[in-house]
Amino acid sequence: MYELIYWQEIQGRGEFVRLVLEDAGAPYVDVARDGGDVGKLLATELAPYAFAVPVLRDGDLIIPQTVAITRFLGERHGLAPPDERGRHLANAIALTIADLVSEVHDTHHPIAVNRTYETQREAAAQRAKAFRDTRLPKFLAYLEGLLGHDTTRDGRFLVGDAASYADLAAFQILEGLAFAFPRALSARRSEIPKLRALRDRIAERPRIAAYLASPRRIAFNQSGIFRHYPELDA
Amino acid sequence: MYELIYWQEIQGRGEFVRLVLEDAGAPYVDVARDGGDVGKLLATELAPYAFAVPVLRDGDLIIPQTVAITRFLGERHGLAPPDERGRHLANAIALTIADLVSEVHDTHHPIAVNRTYETQREAAAQRAKAFRDTRLPKFLAYLEGLLGHDTTRDGRFLVGDAASYADLAAFQILEGLAFAFPRALSARRSEIPKLRALRDRIAERPRIAAYLASPRRIAFNQSGIFRHYPELDA
Repeated sequence: MYELIYWQEIQGRGEFVRLVLEDAGAPYVDVARDGGDVGKLLATELAPYAFAVPVLRDGDLIIPQTVAITRFLGERHGLAPPDERGRHLANAIALTIADLVSEVHDTHHPIAVNRTYETQREAAAQRAKAFRDTRLPKFLAYLEGLLGHDTTRDGRFLVGDAASYADLAAFQILEGLAFAFPRALSARRSEIPKLRALRDRIAERPRIAAYLASPRRIAFNQSGIFRHYPELDA
Repeated sequence: MYELIYWQEIQGRGEFVRLVLEDAGAPYVDVARDGGDVGKLLATELAPYAFAVPVLRDGDLIIPQTVAITRFLGERHGLAPPDERGRHLANAIALTIADLVSEVHDTHHPIAVNRTYETQREAAAQRAKAFRDTRLPKFLAYLEGLLGHDTTRDGRFLVGDAASYADLAAFQILEGLAFAFPRALSARRSEIPKLRALRDRIAERPRIAAYLASPRRIAFNQSGIFRHYPELDA
């Protein structure tokens, strides 16, 4: 039984792990939602191993860092490419998506993570504009480009001919962007046909569809990494 | 023969890779310094696999993302823990240091990566202050804490009883911080005795010492990720 340790109120980075666990049908406890105190765990049992959550525990294995966790689970549960070339590419894609997640976070917190959005609105407006104009299209073009290349046998998945944790991460980043930046993402629709088809393909996977319809899927909200401030999506 | 593809004028993220290659005594070509055009490679041979550099090529293997590369090299060349628990911890430490590197970058580029520091000085001053006051001590305490725990047999290395790519990364981040934030780091000296000893221990490794004294070690400068703006180190 895996233990996922992450904040209970938000999707955040933990959601990339939840999606792999759910698609794999792996048994897990979402510790915070089961009554666990994440802050206390970080200060006690997880110290000094983990700088932050999410953390996955599997017996005496402690695995911090989102992409490390999804790679570990993906390779163990058939959600990773079988070949070395493919494994490296899936890992690189997931790490690049994690970088994008950090950039999304910084659109509403460009100055200080421990101060509210309202105290850094002016810088946020500037950073969000730069994100929408230059970074977002660059990341989207990267993902779309992967789907049009020989890295994917038929353009159905990012690597090889089966879904991997990289595809689940791509699904989640699109969902998050659609919540946080609906206008900016909508303006790019025609640039990412294959990526949108991938998103739909992942959403239709039986276990993912069941998860998304369940109470286990926390709704996006204004406490998470993906937040919708209309003024940042001008 | 490995090919390291990274910008030739800066240490940047590529330096984390160079240190592992040098300490391993692995034969490699630093492609840009050998006349290669990194921008062109990214647009041609490395597309669509790599979003950015550094990229390591080993025959037909293409490995983007700094930590993915250092883990790959470390595990292949005896610069990684031998056990599964240790391997996960080394990877998590390296990923956390990579997050710190991104935060250092954003102290001088809090708004837009494609605009100069001079256009975002005001936000940079604010972000740098938040970095110095809250983020820097948190990351340093994490690394120091690892050295005082049972993760390390005798406190000499971050994981286990031998140097790994995580220790090389810790060395490099301390070097970078000493260049970019000499005052802020100096003010924390007494908080990180074990980490400073680790830094010295790594600097004295014969191949690292030879590398640091060679022309292959690019000096820190104002084009890299670690930049010294005295006003950001107030």
